[in-house]
Amino acid sequence: MAGSRKIELTEALALGSEWRHMCFAILYAPDPRMLFGRIPLRYAVLMEMRFDGRLGFPGGFVNSQKRTLEDGLNRELLTKLGEAASAFSVERTEYRNSHAEDTTHVVAHFYAKRLTLEQLEAVEAGAPKAKDHGLEVLGLVRVPLYTLRDGVGGLPAFLENSFIGAAREVLLEALRDLELVEPGSVLNFKRHSFRQPSLNS
Amino acid sequence: MAGSRKIELTEALALGSEWRHMCFAILYAPDPRMLFGRIPLRYAVLMEMRFDGRLGFPGGFVNSQKRTLEDGLNRELLTKLGEAASAFSVERTEYRNSHAEDTTHVVAHFYAKRLTLEQLEAVEAGAPKAKDHGLEVLGLVRVPLYTLRDGVGGLPAFLENSFIGAAREVLLEALRDLELVEPGSVLNFKRHSFRQPSLNS
Repeated sequence: MAGSRKIELTEALALGSEWRHMCFAILYAPDPRMLFGRIPLRYAVLMEMRFDGRLGFPGGFVNSQKRTLEDGLNRELLTKLGEAASAFSVERTEYRNSHAEDTTHVVAHFYAKRLTLEQLEAVEAGAPKAKDHGLEVLGLVRVPLYTLRDGVGGLPAFLENSFIGAAREVLLEALRDLELVEPGSVLNFKRHSFRQPSLNS
Repeated sequence: MAGSRKIELTEALALGSEWRHMCFAILYAPDPRMLFGRIPLRYAVLMEMRFDGRLGFPGGFVNSQKRTLEDGLNRELLTKLGEAASAFSVERTEYRNSHAEDTTHVVAHFYAKRLTLEQLEAVEAGAPKAKDHGLEVLGLVRVPLYTLRDGVGGLPAFLENSFIGAAREVLLEALRDLELVEPGSVLNFKRHSFRQPSLNS
């Protein structure tokens, strides 16, 4: 979100009715497997390719006058991800942070929900049958949490993709704070600003 | 592919045994739906998020000594995409072009396969059960072929993502040559080299 600022939830909930609220969920699950038999995957973390060609988290607008943020988020997840999202529900305790954009009067609330790998796989399997598939949602992808030997492939290359709003920053914070990557490793990525010219030439 | 050059198929097949061959398929299907009720989707075109955090086409290494390129490609599609790939087979007539990289002695052959939307949806639905899912393949996404009113969202933003090797160039050529986008519109994207700073800040 261009020009967004972090705000407290209480402050966000006190914003006037000219503000619209969005809620998004970082869905993740422990994955014990190894890539190529030697690189620990650690966790499966889901993001979605959006209709606008950018990566973001599943979720959407919530009518905060009519229902709680979490009720609205769980409804959005059903629309965006399909029936497998009814196997769990995102709660207030899983709230992480909020980002407000003053120019558009949109405030985005982020949650992180830990699933079992089976629940997360069910979300992936069911997503192509969701109402918004092929329209607002172009597909789900897992985030590679490792860095390959070349120092670029994996999470660093993934972070060079286009993200919507605060999604990239929220992802990095969640990876660090939930310890989905090894402590300290995300700080290094934050300083990266390389872009391999050959990749987009 | 950094430093890759286009070569003719006959030239590629005459390369010495120190060269390794890869084959990839652009799977696409007509999609008559409208985004937001007003933006024609035209086609669903599949790409995959790879283990290295970059977008590419499904496929992989082929032992060109043991079998034809197309046999090898169809085997790779089964591993990467699962059983739904057995409902069709990519043929020599669907070959498009080859890109050779002299430094690594790897030559990549690209094919474009037109499916029905039902076949493509079956590939998406089956992909999470494929052998490589969550390992070498992190998810399938459709390419947005339209441009939103802001002139950035849609295909332009998608093209700002990280791609592997010649995948971005191959995608653009296929969109133009197969007329998956309106004639002339891809040429404009080729000149784009913007990058919204806010997206990755």
